[in-house]
Amino acid sequence: MDMIQVYIHPTCEIWNSISNRTLQNISHLKNLVTPIIDNVKNYGDVALKTYTRKYDHADIKHIQVTEEEFNKADMQISNCFKKSIEIAYRNIKYFHEKQMHEETPIEISKGVFCWRKIIPIEKVGFYIPGGSSPLFSTVLMLGIPGNLSGCKNIILCTPPNKNGEIHPSILYTARYVGITRIYKVGGAQAIAAMAYGTESISSVYKIFGPGNSYVTIAKQIVSQRGIVSIDIPAGPSEIAIMADETANPEFVASDLLSQSEHDPDSYILLVTPNNQFWIEKVKKELKKQFLDIDKKQDIVEKSLKKSKIIVLSSLDECLTLINQIAPEHLIINCKNASYWGEKVTNAGSVFLGNYSPVSAGDYASGTNHVLPTYGYAKFYSGVSIDSFIKKITFQKISKKGLKNLSECINILSSEEGLLAHKKSINIRLKNEF
Amino acid sequence: MDMIQVYIHPTCEIWNSISNRTLQNISHLKNLVTPIIDNVKNYGDVALKTYTRKYDHADIKHIQVTEEEFNKADMQISNCFKKSIEIAYRNIKYFHEKQMHEETPIEISKGVFCWRKIIPIEKVGFYIPGGSSPLFSTVLMLGIPGNLSGCKNIILCTPPNKNGEIHPSILYTARYVGITRIYKVGGAQAIAAMAYGTESISSVYKIFGPGNSYVTIAKQIVSQRGIVSIDIPAGPSEIAIMADETANPEFVASDLLSQSEHDPDSYILLVTPNNQFWIEKVKKELKKQFLDIDKKQDIVEKSLKKSKIIVLSSLDECLTLINQIAPEHLIINCKNASYWGEKVTNAGSVFLGNYSPVSAGDYASGTNHVLPTYGYAKFYSGVSIDSFIKKITFQKISKKGLKNLSECINILSSEEGLLAHKKSINIRLKNEF
Repeated sequence: MDMIQVYIHPTCEIWNSISNRTLQNISHLKNLVTPIIDNVKNYGDVALKTYTRKYDHADIKHIQVTEEEFNKADMQISNCFKKSIEIAYRNIKYFHEKQMHEETPIEISKGVFCWRKIIPIEKVGFYIPGGSSPLFSTVLMLGIPGNLSGCKNIILCTPPNKNGEIHPSILYTARYVGITRIYKVGGAQAIAAMAYGTESISSVYKIFGPGNSYVTIAKQIVSQRGIVSIDIPAGPSEIAIMADETANPEFVASDLLSQSEHDPDSYILLVTPNNQFWIEKVKKELKKQFLDIDKKQDIVEKSLKKSKIIVLSSLDECLTLINQIAPEHLIINCKNASYWGEKVTNAGSVFLGNYSPVSAGDYASGTNHVLPTYGYAKFYSGVSIDSFIKKITFQKISKKGLKNLSECINILSSEEGLLAHKKSINIRLKNEF
Repeated sequence: MDMIQVYIHPTCEIWNSISNRTLQNISHLKNLVTPIIDNVKNYGDVALKTYTRKYDHADIKHIQVTEEEFNKADMQISNCFKKSIEIAYRNIKYFHEKQMHEETPIEISKGVFCWRKIIPIEKVGFYIPGGSSPLFSTVLMLGIPGNLSGCKNIILCTPPNKNGEIHPSILYTARYVGITRIYKVGGAQAIAAMAYGTESISSVYKIFGPGNSYVTIAKQIVSQRGIVSIDIPAGPSEIAIMADETANPEFVASDLLSQSEHDPDSYILLVTPNNQFWIEKVKKELKKQFLDIDKKQDIVEKSLKKSKIIVLSSLDECLTLINQIAPEHLIINCKNASYWGEKVTNAGSVFLGNYSPVSAGDYASGTNHVLPTYGYAKFYSGVSIDSFIKKITFQKISKKGLKNLSECINILSSEEGLLAHKKSINIRLKNEF
């Protein structure tokens, strides 16, 4: 069987089926997750400890990570790791701090002042999955904009291993970005704890972070209940590469592979007007590089089998398909990459040219790696400072200013049949009428 | 029976019950709304016409409003209404156009350029309810930022009356703000049409606008299906007034009343450290002004009966309660209103001083009136330019730039066990190693 599927000049129907990655139907999990949430709501820490015993096989005395545990982690961390975190931190911070835009009051008309004030969300919670990959990079991607935005209360939940421990790289990175309230709890129970609060964990207003299906559906449930908001509905990782004949097949294959190791359900596309000869080179490279991989081979193989090379007649057509797809990551590996980049309307994050692999943005170039999947890039942005703030409008109007607006408001509110609205204006100005 | 409830120095439990406006349980409507959505998805215009006959008692030949209908509406509109729309339009536009912030590329390190590009959401749809009040003001509040943000495709759905007509003030205002694709369809069927598209109505990526319970749940369903996004979950109108002894009881009563005419479920609070004497004056004014009202008296009476005066020991305590409540509208009618305004952390829109009634912001001062209710102001902002745009991150890295980042990425990706990520960097630099 071939390692990747190839579609040559597909029909419109095939375009649609390529673009369409239907949301995983995880609604059957709702019946499993709802009682977990309600038990945490009702029984607090006792429920958390029970679920941690059941699902993480760990007996936890103190849910919150202690100072000693942070210090122990610190000693386990190599200097070269610390140095790398420092570099990534600096770049991510530098990129995100330019996203703050203060606005000044505007005098709309004489005596009518209006403005927006940026206010950080008071308390936020991060979920970081456990398992084989300790996702400290996501701690950076959430913690840095969270802190920059001025959020004062940031907590983090992550499941412990069987010995009740958190991976030292997560503890080190969290403390590095200023997060010291870390709780050893995972899964739907962690989401419930952050939404409702327990004796140990205070509730938050917004929950961020990736997770498995249980975590995803728990986030959906608590947000639908109106208790908290959530970042972006999370799905398997996605990449689309748009390549012309100037693209190096070796590089292209390595980018396809790098996305495939995330998840067997990763969504992977190469869209190109190139000829069969170039495509064969990519396929050959894919096989060669696949054999070089000595970790996660099963995941890579599964996701590669579902991945696709789409051959279209021009770069213009390639971009039309890509904008229809709205991929999480888009590499434009073409001559005049910037020209084509200007035409992108739907994507999470765009990587231009031969030397901009997605891995750079995943860790260290400065951009955020928490991005919309499933085509959500049509209407959502990735995580940024914006995700951690609200903007409240203010107005201060003088008597004179109100008088100037009053005729307009009188006429419009009468037309909408809202006479008490009109009255609230006129009662203030009655000496003037 | 008293017109308004009074709580003097309530306990902590009462605070919580005051803050808590539980989401209306409209989940029982799901079974009614889901088949409407699916029928529109499957049968398109035929389903729309059937539902319009059933629910709006109108037989519609052409779903889309014609040029002739716009022209006819234009002739029915008075010059003073046109003049008022012009003033409101100018103010709202002036306030919103200051919300655009272009960002320039940043050189994160030598050869590593990152930036965010603002892109309007490609196509959006507005829902404007029918009924007795033609909400043309909401057409302004959605249409102006929609247009300013650069959205090219804006459509609007609103139910027709029995004669198959749309209120001329809605048609006039829509065309004034540049919206000419208006469809005579209301309720859940309108939401379904904008989400899935029909022969007449093209699908959109984001749906905005208020509506009854059917509309609200339809918006929730299509957004949960991942088809579109929606603005803010909408609920009954809310006001909190914080007043000290400098506040005029007449003005305060008029503001409470103006909110009460929106909905029998309006959420209305006056929070004050003032004495019984002042409170009695407010209550007397409420009664007096209530008797003056000759429209919507039943709605006003119902909502006033549920409204509350909360007496606390200080303005500081008042503000603590208000931040816990996160009201949609907040009037601060106190000495040093700006000082207290600085301490607000959770509210949709804040009105400072004696001459800043909510009605001003509802129509004409420039701020947006589509605001978060139900305490959502803790984590959501009202509608603004931000609601109509996405921000895509871009990066362009030179070979040299990638080389400088490579050690950091190698170390971090190895620690996360993502070796194909590492490979995608090193394969590009192999001549250098």
